[in-house]
Amino acid sequence: MSPTPNPRVLYAKVPGPGLLVAGEHLVYDPAPTIDLDEPLRGGFLTKTLLLSPEPFMRERLRDPAILTYSTPMVVGQPLVGFGLVQVLRSEKEGVTAGDYMYGFTPWEHYTVQPYVDARFDFAGANYPSYTFDMDSLVLQPVPDPLGAFPWSRLTSVLGTPGLTAFVGLESVAPDMKSGQTVYVSSGASGVGSMVVQLCKSKGLRVIASASSDSKADYIRTLGADVAFNYKTTSVGSALAEHGPLDYYWDNVCGQQLEQAIQNMALNGVILACGAISEYNTPAEDCYGVKTLALVFKRRLRIQGFLVSDGMPTLLPRFLAEVPVLLAQGKLKSEEQLFVGLEKGIEAFLSLYDGTSKAKPVVVVDAAYA
Amino acid sequence: MSPTPNPRVLYAKVPGPGLLVAGEHLVYDPAPTIDLDEPLRGGFLTKTLLLSPEPFMRERLRDPAILTYSTPMVVGQPLVGFGLVQVLRSEKEGVTAGDYMYGFTPWEHYTVQPYVDARFDFAGANYPSYTFDMDSLVLQPVPDPLGAFPWSRLTSVLGTPGLTAFVGLESVAPDMKSGQTVYVSSGASGVGSMVVQLCKSKGLRVIASASSDSKADYIRTLGADVAFNYKTTSVGSALAEHGPLDYYWDNVCGQQLEQAIQNMALNGVILACGAISEYNTPAEDCYGVKTLALVFKRRLRIQGFLVSDGMPTLLPRFLAEVPVLLAQGKLKSEEQLFVGLEKGIEAFLSLYDGTSKAKPVVVVDAAYA
Repeated sequence: MSPTPNPRVLYAKVPGPGLLVAGEHLVYDPAPTIDLDEPLRGGFLTKTLLLSPEPFMRERLRDPAILTYSTPMVVGQPLVGFGLVQVLRSEKEGVTAGDYMYGFTPWEHYTVQPYVDARFDFAGANYPSYTFDMDSLVLQPVPDPLGAFPWSRLTSVLGTPGLTAFVGLESVAPDMKSGQTVYVSSGASGVGSMVVQLCKSKGLRVIASASSDSKADYIRTLGADVAFNYKTTSVGSALAEHGPLDYYWDNVCGQQLEQAIQNMALNGVILACGAISEYNTPAEDCYGVKTLALVFKRRLRIQGFLVSDGMPTLLPRFLAEVPVLLAQGKLKSEEQLFVGLEKGIEAFLSLYDGTSKAKPVVVVDAAYA
Repeated sequence: MSPTPNPRVLYAKVPGPGLLVAGEHLVYDPAPTIDLDEPLRGGFLTKTLLLSPEPFMRERLRDPAILTYSTPMVVGQPLVGFGLVQVLRSEKEGVTAGDYMYGFTPWEHYTVQPYVDARFDFAGANYPSYTFDMDSLVLQPVPDPLGAFPWSRLTSVLGTPGLTAFVGLESVAPDMKSGQTVYVSSGASGVGSMVVQLCKSKGLRVIASASSDSKADYIRTLGADVAFNYKTTSVGSALAEHGPLDYYWDNVCGQQLEQAIQNMALNGVILACGAISEYNTPAEDCYGVKTLALVFKRRLRIQGFLVSDGMPTLLPRFLAEVPVLLAQGKLKSEEQLFVGLEKGIEAFLSLYDGTSKAKPVVVVDAAYA
């Protein structure tokens, strides 16, 4: 067969701290081609349908000598992240043409799976025990929702963001009680919007914030009792008015964490999920939190977790419960569609530069918009 | 009977943030007298033997309008804190002349118990649920060690400092395992010196620091594997060399907490016990901790606790185990004796100004030195 165009989003250059620059660190590269009949060597060929830009990906774009919780991506190769693909051909037992699969996949139109070149050599690296091999998050089959909800939910409440919310709540705060109060930062994000809804379903009073008035409006449609734009409303004042907080779901770290600590109730619990305020910030410029003496004074618990830790025990429950809730209309989500892989970099950077309107999703195959 | 001198250490003036000033906020007042035959109204008369200056007392010396975890002390009355007293006369059932008692008592030579004027009116104050009524820590009978160890151990490993260590370890980190590594800040303090020894008895590798070379030497005599003077050795460098840390016992907060977080191992636990670096610091001048994103990246837990929370369940075990260990010579402690109540203010302030050499104790009755 003649070569088929296989555009990709290339991880072109290792960035330092700071916002990534499109065209420098990340490059849309339309030139590659693929022979769709090429040998599969026991693997399978997939067509990319949807890709999910997620905040954690920023940490992987770094000098591999920097040790952190995630393995790095491989420069000179496509970005890798969660996505939905469809199998075109397969030589692997149990994988059949037509199957839908969700998991880690390169940001390109077509891929012979399992992808190889974009995979970091974790076994060959001498990394500390707290490092998670991201490329171990391989593709898994997923059922066709058959129109009950859009496929794009796999990039938000039904995907890793939603699972992160589910895992965090179930593993860190299984004792949440009706009538308690939770504050959720980044409440319109993939993770945050699921936390808001799961907490409401448990009967909590939910306070949430986001970076714009329209996102605050969106959070209210998810059921939040109080929603505000942290760029125009003081977090400290809002929490002092609506707190004290039994729980704080922290997606951002920094100043919001400081203010939340200041407004925690006795025995309050902080679920440390992310730090989006710092992913593009040099360590020395990170915000210094001054309220930590309150941790002992109010007997607080701050508990960090990664979704991967809870997957083995909680993924089956998540997969049993969440699609049903979605089909019943009991879980809401909005995604901001970026149609075309050429919009991928813009979609990814919208997570950090404040321009995202809802959870971004890159629609690579327009039929899945 | 003629009036007997009853000197006291007076809480004379509410301080702002910053170090207390002897003669201004705290005043040694030799003038009061007491009639040792005065009516007891169903209570009992005690003679003060030892008083224990402890870091937490600073927080109680504040404007009562400031809400925090402890009730304030009462200006115009003596300081109140843990101490050892002996009963001279009693009208209370179960309390007999000659009894030794330990608990909260005013900083004066003689007191009709329960003390009244120095007690903060907690029931009448509209305080949040995280406020602990310090004056509820009433005197309890204690056995005479009969020379097996000095009475002054009641101000260190056998008293509230030791109990704090015991409660923190048992309630927050009951899973400590032999071979794990713990870092203890303020390792020569009453609490810290007990943490060092209890962790060694569990088989942990113990790193500890203090504010002078001589205190570091002292910590080594307690069994610490690594001890250093944080004023001349970089905490970050020392922990990078001897870590990573499975546990950090935090007595100080601020910069040491930041550095400890930087050096925690996967799933590490931080026991948030105190914040002595901040007790005399205005909130806006407290050190800002910049490493909190590591809490989720390394799945850390930071758990605050107060000794009072664990007393009901753990005090009996503590009282059964610790005096025996002391009598067997298996627990060490040094106290710095300040003989005479007129040395009380100096002893108290030595906790904060860096001049303390070991856990300070005010020996009010020289026979108990």
